Amino acid sequence: MSSAPTQEISKPHETVISVESEGSRMPPRARIMASAIDLFRQQGIKGVGVDAIAEAADSNKMTLYRHFGSKDDLICECLKQVSERREQIWRDLEATFPDNPLAQIRGWIEEAAECIFNDRRGCDLANAAVELKEANHPAFKVIVDAKKAHMDRLTDLCRQAGVKQAEQLADALMLLVEGARVCSQSAGAEGPQQQLKRACDAMIAAYSSD
Amino acid sequence: MSSAPTQEISKPHETVISVESEGSRMPPRARIMASAIDLFRQQGIKGVGVDAIAEAADSNKMTLYRHFGSKDDLICECLKQVSERREQIWRDLEATFPDNPLAQIRGWIEEAAECIFNDRRGCDLANAAVELKEANHPAFKVIVDAKKAHMDRLTDLCRQAGVKQAEQLADALMLLVEGARVCSQSAGAEGPQQQLKRACDAMIAAYSSD
Repeated sequence: MSSAPTQEISKPHETVISVESEGSRMPPRARIMASAIDLFRQQGIKGVGVDAIAEAADSNKMTLYRHFGSKDDLICECLKQVSERREQIWRDLEATFPDNPLAQIRGWIEEAAECIFNDRRGCDLANAAVELKEANHPAFKVIVDAKKAHMDRLTDLCRQAGVKQAEQLADALMLLVEGARVCSQSAGAEGPQQQLKRACDAMIAAYSSD
Repeated sequence: MSSAPTQEISKPHETVISVESEGSRMPPRARIMASAIDLFRQQGIKGVGVDAIAEAADSNKMTLYRHFGSKDDLICECLKQVSERREQIWRDLEATFPDNPLAQIRGWIEEAAECIFNDRRGCDLANAAVELKEANHPAFKVIVDAKKAHMDRLTDLCRQAGVKQAEQLADALMLLVEGARVCSQSAGAEGPQQQLKRACDAMIAAYSSD
């Protein structure tokens, strides 16, 4: 349980679909979602209104409301798409490192470390949870379901890797990754997020020596 | 390096100063800050306007602007006060566990675990960083300075506790705590934040066995 993956893996989740470059080929609904995901990420869910989203998507408010009943609906659909991209990362890792659960785990950590290095905006799902304080906001179900699926996948991989206390290692790794993604926003360039991979290595080693 | 602190320690940082109960004894500036910190925490920095803050403080917008030049100034002052409360926790832990750096570290972890258990709102400083996307917002300096001071204190305690790789352990513990505080907002009641203390124990053990 020590070799780190060295193969290249694709990174579909961080690909911002540019409305300007691809807009003409994308239908209105997809354009609106691409603009919304991008603007929510850059300016925050509460910092952007539907007018700005419609304009960025080269569309209009009426079309936006025809496809999404409300801003809240649009938020939920965007978060589902973000979640689906995360699921795709896991599928890509599985395809890249078949029958090597530890390499898949390390690939996921590598991905997170690269995101932190390239972009200090953190996790769209966690950020949405921070911004949306209303406990009954429909987005919370999307966020919690996505995080749960993520945890289940990670726990299953820890189990496949032969870790006896698989749930504990998975929880600890998730805390480290989530912590790094929030520190990249709050702790300055030299914050503890820089040590994410090293901290994960120490945690994996601690749970592999049983 | 194994005993956990059992003594009671005070928790000044989570004490919400109620304007209703103490308002009559507090001067206007303090009332406005108490209301702002509370409302920012409940509804988000962008979710609350100065009118609502002035009203909650039993004051008015003119008084608010006389004490704080702008909403941004008020945000900065509030975050400085939150940071000061965090510093006070460290001082209390030092007074409670003098000459026992590991007990101080464990006391800090215990505090974080209690906050997660009692309140899913997370860290006010980190949340502000998530909400305020403008890179040049003056609050970022306050947030980054506070996180840096926090890291320095934690690293120093790890060093005093005889940990050889003190910086690495401090970074890892901070990632776990920050991760737990964001997961308490995003991962549902059964999320990995529930395992914060266990994960910190594993990390402390990993760095103590050198």
